[in-house]
Amino acid sequence: MDILKKLLKKNETKLLLVVADGLGGAPHPNYGYRTELEVANKPNLDKLARHSVLGLTIPVEHGITPGSGPAHLSLFGYDPIEIQIGRGVLEALGIGFHLGPNDVAARGNFATIHDGVVVDRRAGRISSEECSRLIKKLSEHIKSIDGVEVILRPGKEHRFVAIFRGEGLSDKLSDADPQKDHMPLVEAKPLAAEASRTADVVNKFIRKANEILRDEPQANGVLLRGFAKSPKIEPFPEKYQLRAVALAVYPMYKGLTRLLGLETPDVGETFEDEVKALKELWNNYDFFYIHFKDTDKAGEDGDFELKVKKIEYFDKFVPVFVDLNPDVLVITGDHSTPAIIGGHSWHPNPTLLHSKVAGVDDARFFTEKECAKGYLGIFYAKYLINLMLANAGRLKKFGA
Amino acid sequence: MDILKKLLKKNETKLLLVVADGLGGAPHPNYGYRTELEVANKPNLDKLARHSVLGLTIPVEHGITPGSGPAHLSLFGYDPIEIQIGRGVLEALGIGFHLGPNDVAARGNFATIHDGVVVDRRAGRISSEECSRLIKKLSEHIKSIDGVEVILRPGKEHRFVAIFRGEGLSDKLSDADPQKDHMPLVEAKPLAAEASRTADVVNKFIRKANEILRDEPQANGVLLRGFAKSPKIEPFPEKYQLRAVALAVYPMYKGLTRLLGLETPDVGETFEDEVKALKELWNNYDFFYIHFKDTDKAGEDGDFELKVKKIEYFDKFVPVFVDLNPDVLVITGDHSTPAIIGGHSWHPNPTLLHSKVAGVDDARFFTEKECAKGYLGIFYAKYLINLMLANAGRLKKFGA
Repeated sequence: MDILKKLLKKNETKLLLVVADGLGGAPHPNYGYRTELEVANKPNLDKLARHSVLGLTIPVEHGITPGSGPAHLSLFGYDPIEIQIGRGVLEALGIGFHLGPNDVAARGNFATIHDGVVVDRRAGRISSEECSRLIKKLSEHIKSIDGVEVILRPGKEHRFVAIFRGEGLSDKLSDADPQKDHMPLVEAKPLAAEASRTADVVNKFIRKANEILRDEPQANGVLLRGFAKSPKIEPFPEKYQLRAVALAVYPMYKGLTRLLGLETPDVGETFEDEVKALKELWNNYDFFYIHFKDTDKAGEDGDFELKVKKIEYFDKFVPVFVDLNPDVLVITGDHSTPAIIGGHSWHPNPTLLHSKVAGVDDARFFTEKECAKGYLGIFYAKYLINLMLANAGRLKKFGA
Repeated sequence: MDILKKLLKKNETKLLLVVADGLGGAPHPNYGYRTELEVANKPNLDKLARHSVLGLTIPVEHGITPGSGPAHLSLFGYDPIEIQIGRGVLEALGIGFHLGPNDVAARGNFATIHDGVVVDRRAGRISSEECSRLIKKLSEHIKSIDGVEVILRPGKEHRFVAIFRGEGLSDKLSDADPQKDHMPLVEAKPLAAEASRTADVVNKFIRKANEILRDEPQANGVLLRGFAKSPKIEPFPEKYQLRAVALAVYPMYKGLTRLLGLETPDVGETFEDEVKALKELWNNYDFFYIHFKDTDKAGEDGDFELKVKKIEYFDKFVPVFVDLNPDVLVITGDHSTPAIIGGHSWHPNPTLLHSKVAGVDDARFFTEKECAKGYLGIFYAKYLINLMLANAGRLKKFGA
């Protein structure tokens, strides 16, 4: 892939990557074994499909169901197996916390502990309000451990994020979480010599927190797992020589794209706000990523009809994208989220690429089936950016 | 790929690889968004398509537009990223100059220089005759530098090739060419310790040449770039255990295939001559490569209708290929050259494979669209040779 770097050239073209999260589906017996995309009434997407080339993209590998992290890395042209974003980092991104280079982040759980045994890893799924109260209480009593700053942020229900900030910390630690109920508490263990001080700090923090929480009825202890530092990633704007902006309202996607070096302005709270910002910022960037979350949410809930409705809602914005007249327009998903599965899946992403020189195929609808027969074929999502750059005339010839 | 070597077996089969250069196209708005292959009247290709399997081959990587060098390496089963042919070597191949193991070749430009600044890198695109005159003048005055033989050959207009011949020369040199007008002259710099003597020789040559050209009105200086030695390549006939011949009239393709160890007899000046030679040599070899250039030339000129005509001309020879009754017949391109782009492109190559055991698909026409839906799918061109060998019964079973 290093050859790409030498081939890059700049021009005035505009590239628009529209990601409908969890877009791809699977046939559902209650709907005539059709998929969400096959049932949805989406005239704009279908019309565009007739003037585009279609394909299916594999986020990571055949049969691999990706989380949002690897799925997005791939979309931006990074190898999602080579570059892995740790759980702690993803949790921090998910609450909009920007990690610095000296930070080690971990996913935290409030738990119920009796006599050194974890009896409920989720502390009865305490409310988010209760979680906030407990984080406030801990934060008031614990500012730092042995000179390492401790930053705590509440999440939903029993979840929280812990950030340890200090020079020379390492994320090479085992989880301080037995992973199952009715198991004894475990300490974080250093997985490399360089991590012994960090392990010490983390374990001291846990003992101190459990001491402070001692008299809480349910959440009388904390578990930490997924210790991680921000990965070193070559920024997308440098890697591909593109002034790039991400239009996303969910913290996770803002965080992920910020991690990749895209600009992530605050654009509001809805997809409509994102689209408005897209139009306003159209002259300021070369590459635009815009993120629609609701297809994934409906799929996660296993709600086929809601996902269909969300596709139909999304469809109404397609003319806006076309009217901006981007040199390259891609509409795709990051991963599939079929309602029948009720979660992310390994099914490849329906993908549509529109440009003046993209090629042609026989697709008449934007569905999984039509994409499977498309001119782009089935390929790894990490190569999508190559095709976008090529169609934008931003790649020189390789060799003479 | 090393497994292939152990699986090779010999037999009496004949493999015919027909390459229509730059064959693939892209939809053109002036022709109903059809491609050159879709517009062309090519009954023989379409008929053969109905008795063959189709697919699309990617010369290098998704989105990468290859030069002729990488595109051809791939067709012959070499990894075009692993083996790279330097610019100087390709230029030498292009004029039919055979490089020896002690040769470093460079692409040369005659340029106009004022006070050490390159004011025109192409010296006003002097005529080819003028170029020949200047090369003769230089050759008369410069035979060698510090014991290194200097060989100069004219190219088209301002272009020429310089070959430095001597023991221990290295091609690890930076370009002695500022690459842009209105920049000061630059010297070749050694990029490795072993190249310092070569850099010295090259820079002395340039100074001497510029001295000799001092009073020329336009072409009063030379620039050299793309220093390269012939890459070390395992010869194709050994790698695949095939007695192989290349039938090509353009020097570049003769040179490329000669570099790969194919025999490259002089067959004349036209495609008809190549086809005549193919018939005459049919009993003498196992593997035949035959090259049709005109589809690429028309595409490069952005001449859609001419490319259509050239496809129609090419089509008339298809029955000859079929009548030779090869055990495996492949018709494909090396890269695409859509008229609408007016140059090489990244679009995969329409590919047709015909054999008694190749399989079947629903293709009715030999077009990009039909190939996209073909039984062979979309795959890297470097695997095409595997399929040819398999269809020829020249590969044993892998494992028990």
